[in-house]
Amino acid sequence: MAKQKTLDDLFLDTLKDIYYAERQILKALPKMAKGAESDELRAAFEKHHDETEGQVDRLKKVFEIVGKRAQGKMCPAIEGIIEEGEEIMDEFKGMPALDAGLVSAAQAVEQYEIARYGTLKRWAEELGMKDAAKLLGETLAEEAATDKSLTALAEQLANQRAKAA
Amino acid sequence: MAKQKTLDDLFLDTLKDIYYAERQILKALPKMAKGAESDELRAAFEKHHDETEGQVDRLKKVFEIVGKRAQGKMCPAIEGIIEEGEEIMDEFKGMPALDAGLVSAAQAVEQYEIARYGTLKRWAEELGMKDAAKLLGETLAEEAATDKSLTALAEQLANQRAKAA
Repeated sequence: MAKQKTLDDLFLDTLKDIYYAERQILKALPKMAKGAESDELRAAFEKHHDETEGQVDRLKKVFEIVGKRAQGKMCPAIEGIIEEGEEIMDEFKGMPALDAGLVSAAQAVEQYEIARYGTLKRWAEELGMKDAAKLLGETLAEEAATDKSLTALAEQLANQRAKAA
Repeated sequence: MAKQKTLDDLFLDTLKDIYYAERQILKALPKMAKGAESDELRAAFEKHHDETEGQVDRLKKVFEIVGKRAQGKMCPAIEGIIEEGEEIMDEFKGMPALDAGLVSAAQAVEQYEIARYGTLKRWAEELGMKDAAKLLGETLAEEAATDKSLTALAEQLANQRAKAA
């Protein structure tokens, strides 16, 4: 009889998925910062890069809690989301709408992370891993705050476009 | 000199992206409903399938407003997100954690849509397309409600697992 796959297996799979995703995001953020036209957006990407390093560290601690080696698992979702961001950078390079597109790409990344961390936190609670749930909750709160500040930045950029028009 | 790509171009690109995504979701939802173990989750996927048909209709109206033919554009993000859902269905088929995995996959889809509709609504407002913004806002509210009800369902399923353990 095949081993019954339980919530512990699903938790570990999803942990590997977001660990892979975070490291792809770490690679993508400097490219997005370099591509950004406005100083504010570049600064936002640089800040989020530093934050992401802390989030990777938290994930390593969660791997320790479950007694497994920190290991990524190819995550087609984040590959696709980042690919769309790269398409925007290519197609809108030097164009007036570039920064609006970059914010949009970054928010797709944030929402993906919010989905994954929300799920992982819930499962950690169900599995009785309080410390893991706390760490995952901290990152979840950071991602939600980043998404909110990207919305504010998008509105600010829109106001600048309106004044320039 | 190359044509300056503006927010109108970005809006249309993203509209095509989510139109493609919604139609992929329409194909994926019956498979997810069929895969679900619990009646509640199956019913949730069937309800969201009907809702998605209405969302596709709204997108067609937005294409009319901008005077373009309704047309999809390959969206690697949704391909990747759906691929991860299919992996879960394969790997957890008949396993106790299947439904938890299906809810997680569905919430990744919802969050992606929330990101895209949030952006499109904001851009429609900036571009002065009030009717389009209204349509996109209606779908955004539906997606947010679906995500919330999936969280509630996940908690209900977790309680059932606790009782059965």
